[in-house]
Amino acid sequence: MKSTGGSDEAKRNAGESAAAAVEDGMVVGLGTGSTTAHAIRAIGRAVDAGLDVQGVPTSFQSRQLAREEGIPLTDLDSVSTIDLAIDGADQFAGAHLIKGGGAAHAREKVVDNAASRFLVVADPSKAGERLSHPVPVEVLPAARTTVADDVHMLGGNPTLREAAHKDGPVVTDNGNLVLDCAFGEIRSPQELADDLASIPGVVEHGLFVGMADEIHVGTDDGVEIHE
Amino acid sequence: MKSTGGSDEAKRNAGESAAAAVEDGMVVGLGTGSTTAHAIRAIGRAVDAGLDVQGVPTSFQSRQLAREEGIPLTDLDSVSTIDLAIDGADQFAGAHLIKGGGAAHAREKVVDNAASRFLVVADPSKAGERLSHPVPVEVLPAARTTVADDVHMLGGNPTLREAAHKDGPVVTDNGNLVLDCAFGEIRSPQELADDLASIPGVVEHGLFVGMADEIHVGTDDGVEIHE
Repeated sequence: MKSTGGSDEAKRNAGESAAAAVEDGMVVGLGTGSTTAHAIRAIGRAVDAGLDVQGVPTSFQSRQLAREEGIPLTDLDSVSTIDLAIDGADQFAGAHLIKGGGAAHAREKVVDNAASRFLVVADPSKAGERLSHPVPVEVLPAARTTVADDVHMLGGNPTLREAAHKDGPVVTDNGNLVLDCAFGEIRSPQELADDLASIPGVVEHGLFVGMADEIHVGTDDGVEIHE
Repeated sequence: MKSTGGSDEAKRNAGESAAAAVEDGMVVGLGTGSTTAHAIRAIGRAVDAGLDVQGVPTSFQSRQLAREEGIPLTDLDSVSTIDLAIDGADQFAGAHLIKGGGAAHAREKVVDNAASRFLVVADPSKAGERLSHPVPVEVLPAARTTVADDVHMLGGNPTLREAAHKDGPVVTDNGNLVLDCAFGEIRSPQELADDLASIPGVVEHGLFVGMADEIHVGTDDGVEIHE
C-alpha cells in the first residue's frame, strides 16, 4: 500500500473519525489508500464488537483488507443504496478532490457517487487552495495516443503511468491504462471535468467535483472536519 | 455480421461511394457493420489494384474483414493522424449519429473522432428527423446498476443487452456491459451526450454529436451525399 504525505498518526486520526460515523445496519463504501485503511480497520474492530454493517469495496485492495478485518461484503448490484462512503484523496480544495494515485478512481467514483453521504479522509499535506495535482485519467489501451493529443489541446501535459514490479505501463483493475495529466492550477474543476469526460476513450478521470460531504483532516493531535 | 434495415444494394452503393474518397497514401479508419463492410471490400479491391493505404480497424470484426481483404493494417498509436474514417450508424439526424448496435462504439468513437474527415455510410432506413433510437451505453460491469439509476434520473429507460449464443449479457471487446437506454425523441443530443459522459462508470455512449463530415446514403439506384 502506497503511503505518502502526512504522518501515520494523522492518517489514523482521520480514518477513525470517519469510521465513527458508521451506524448499525448501514451499507458502507470502502475506499482505497493508506488513510482509508485506518477507517476500514476501525470498522473491522466495531464489527468484532457487534456492529452490523455491509461493506462495498472500491478496489481489489480494499476488498482484501475488509475481508481480513472480518467486514461482511456485498456488491453494488446487490444493494439498493449505499448509506455512507469513506475514501481518501490525493488532493482536496473545498468539496473538490483529485483521486487516482492508486489507479482505482473509476470504481471509487462509482461507489462514492452512489453513496448518500461521502466522507473524505485526508491529512493536511493533501490540502490545496486550488487543485493543482496531475489528474489521473484512465483510458482504453487503444486510445492512449488520441486521448493524449486531446489532453494537450486542453492545455494539459499527459504522462503514461509506468508500473513498478512489472515492465511497461500500469494496467488498472479494469484492464486499462492511466495518463497522469498535469494542468497546473485548475481554475474551473467542473469545466475540466466535463471536457475530460467527453474525450473518446476516457474511461474515468480523477476529478471528483463537489462530491465530498465532509472532509476529515487528521493531524498528530486530532481531527478537523470540513463540511 | 448483423444486417438490419435497408437493402444490401443500398448498403453497397453507400459503402462504395465512401470508399471512392480514399486516396493513395492515406491512413483510413475502418468502421464496423454491414454497410461499412461494403466499403472495406471496395478498399480491398483498390489495394489489389495498387492503392497504397493503411487501415486502422475499429473492432475485432473490421480487423478480421480488412485482413481477409488484404488491406495493410496499423494501430492508432503507430500513426500521427487518420486522414479519413468510414463508419456506419444505427440512426442519423443531421450530423448527429447513434451508434453501438454492434457494441463497438467506444473504439469506433476513438477512431472516428481522431480522423480529419469522417464519412458515414447508411441507407434511408437509418435517417431520422430527430434522434430517437435507444442510446447504447458501455459501462464498467460493477457500475451496471448505479449507471441504470442515473439514466432513469435523466429520463431514460435502460435495458441490459442480452447476448445470443452466450448465456447472460453481451460483453464488449473491452470486457464491459451495454445498457440500451431509450429516451424517446432526443431534443438536445449535445446536452444528453454531456450528461451521459459525466456518469461515473460510463465508458462510452453511442451519441456521436456533430461528428459526421459527410453522410453517404445509399439507395437501390445510387447514393445521396449529405454534407
